[in-house]
Amino acid sequence: METIRVNTSTQYNILIDDNLLDNCGKLIKEVTSADTIAIITDDNVDKYYGKQVALSLKSQGYNVCKFVFPHGEKQKNYRTLLDIYDFLIENKLTRTDCLVALGGGVVGDITGFAAATYLRGIDFIQIPTSLLAQVDSSVGGKTGIDLECGKNLVGAFKQPKLVLCSISALSTLTDEFFSDGMGEVVKYGMIKSPELFDIISKENIKNNSTLLKEVISKCIGIKRDVVEADEFETGERKLLNFGHTLGHAIEKAGNFTSITHGKAVGIGMALMSNICVTNGLCDKNAHNKLIDCLIKYDIPVSCEYTINELISYSLTDKKRNGNNISLIICPDIGKSQIIKLNIEDYKKFIIGGKDGH
Amino acid sequence: METIRVNTSTQYNILIDDNLLDNCGKLIKEVTSADTIAIITDDNVDKYYGKQVALSLKSQGYNVCKFVFPHGEKQKNYRTLLDIYDFLIENKLTRTDCLVALGGGVVGDITGFAAATYLRGIDFIQIPTSLLAQVDSSVGGKTGIDLECGKNLVGAFKQPKLVLCSISALSTLTDEFFSDGMGEVVKYGMIKSPELFDIISKENIKNNSTLLKEVISKCIGIKRDVVEADEFETGERKLLNFGHTLGHAIEKAGNFTSITHGKAVGIGMALMSNICVTNGLCDKNAHNKLIDCLIKYDIPVSCEYTINELISYSLTDKKRNGNNISLIICPDIGKSQIIKLNIEDYKKFIIGGKDGH
Repeated sequence: METIRVNTSTQYNILIDDNLLDNCGKLIKEVTSADTIAIITDDNVDKYYGKQVALSLKSQGYNVCKFVFPHGEKQKNYRTLLDIYDFLIENKLTRTDCLVALGGGVVGDITGFAAATYLRGIDFIQIPTSLLAQVDSSVGGKTGIDLECGKNLVGAFKQPKLVLCSISALSTLTDEFFSDGMGEVVKYGMIKSPELFDIISKENIKNNSTLLKEVISKCIGIKRDVVEADEFETGERKLLNFGHTLGHAIEKAGNFTSITHGKAVGIGMALMSNICVTNGLCDKNAHNKLIDCLIKYDIPVSCEYTINELISYSLTDKKRNGNNISLIICPDIGKSQIIKLNIEDYKKFIIGGKDGH
Repeated sequence: METIRVNTSTQYNILIDDNLLDNCGKLIKEVTSADTIAIITDDNVDKYYGKQVALSLKSQGYNVCKFVFPHGEKQKNYRTLLDIYDFLIENKLTRTDCLVALGGGVVGDITGFAAATYLRGIDFIQIPTSLLAQVDSSVGGKTGIDLECGKNLVGAFKQPKLVLCSISALSTLTDEFFSDGMGEVVKYGMIKSPELFDIISKENIKNNSTLLKEVISKCIGIKRDVVEADEFETGERKLLNFGHTLGHAIEKAGNFTSITHGKAVGIGMALMSNICVTNGLCDKNAHNKLIDCLIKYDIPVSCEYTINELISYSLTDKKRNGNNISLIICPDIGKSQIIKLNIEDYKKFIIGGKDGH
């Protein structure tokens, strides 16, 4: 078992191993003295792992209750959140009890936000079951919900008490969702690690569980380092947003239904890298390697929207500060930097690249 | 001008003076580099002070927008919160912008929670305009909203950047709302300060602005000391809940409409003090002084509900931890302690006192 310690405002461990689900109750027992644990999950994940996790928790003497909501980003809204609050009240969870987020990014984000705000904050534990959630959303404490007019517009920074990454849980992922997670994996290689980029470029790691575990550990290690240095995203943490400014715009343009997050980030990276080549800020060879790697994992590298449409959507992004926008660029594989542009310069910079078709 | 410095996880000043509203823009300019400031207020307060505050902010070069919602505890719900989020998005507030909570406890609580969660957190400033908000809800960082089934069930700890307590704003308070605030003032005397209790017992301070300023400063000083020692209410901060366990139960029994918070706390203190006398834990003389003081400020000392009804409502309180409930008692004026009882002992203890009629 691999253990990654995260030293943020509250400290916790991320455990990574082949199968952690059967044993999760015992691992959780080490970090919480809760009487009641509420599992929050979606219907897809519940089908595969709900019973297994509940049994393991019950074996440790916890009162266990479970809230299951329909899967999909569309559910990450205030209605689901209110339903979760009602469920917690009905089941009489107090401030010393605990939530378990069992699922992908949507489950993790909304459960984390419920934990951050129910009774002004109770403990929660992440059991991410998608590749995207394991390498990205379960690390760093970002929680939240979407509003009608945008993604993650409401949320909080809330660190979990423990994260359990069980590689075996990825075996039930569809190819579609594996590709989705690989979008973020490629990003880690691009912003910080030529070595990681090499591993995932050499062969498709999907069916190589040893490599998969190594890659997931490396991604989490990178994110841990960045988050420790800048928990509340005032500086270096912004590097994790490579591909996200245009990626979020693409998700928004598709009303959060036509494309998944990791794939949108993939397109965002491809576009931004191309824009950087045009603006003389990125090596053409590195750009080509990025495109090859994305294609290897069935991640799209272009989209149906024009650059002007994407610019318009991106200007409502959270990463905008007053009249400035922080943009992440990668001059080469494993190298990244933040550039801050005012809105007019941002538009010129983006239009300097080719359009999104 | 009196300045009270609060050293919590983020530090800020509470300024107390006769009239701070005309000058609020300049004072706010010292703590935020926001471009846009959104004033959040209710229709009652807006009528008196909305224009004055907006003008002062505009004079400092801020873009100012204002969201006004109907007054009353019933508005402290997720619907108002969603309207505030929409308003902030429409007015393009970014992470470096700032909210101003202009009003009483409801405005402060919901604005603070919006600030804690909009874009995962932006700055906010409190301008409390009721006595209750000045001495209580503007200090300590508790923010939140009510759910259908209970008060403040959802919230966050979020410290403001600055608190401006303008005594002149209290001149437009009705007697009803002055009494409401005095409930909490009496509480501070009871839990920590015989001196404060003496001042408010000697004469009615309502129309003595010098005494009023002194009393408000003392209350805030007490709360500051308690909150600094225990920001997240794991120990001593619970002392501030004297009168609140039964007080919240009374508010809940009245569906949050039949009685105001401060008056409910007043009844809660009177009942608890009486229960302590019966159980031999409180001096009878101190109890009588408390009752006299409450009556002096038109705060009720009994209610229409039976003790059994109140027990039942109080058991859904946030202050319950698992099977235990933390109760605050005052053996004498200015002395307070926390007692932790399991549910059965709690019931016996409360029933040991006289009933609520």
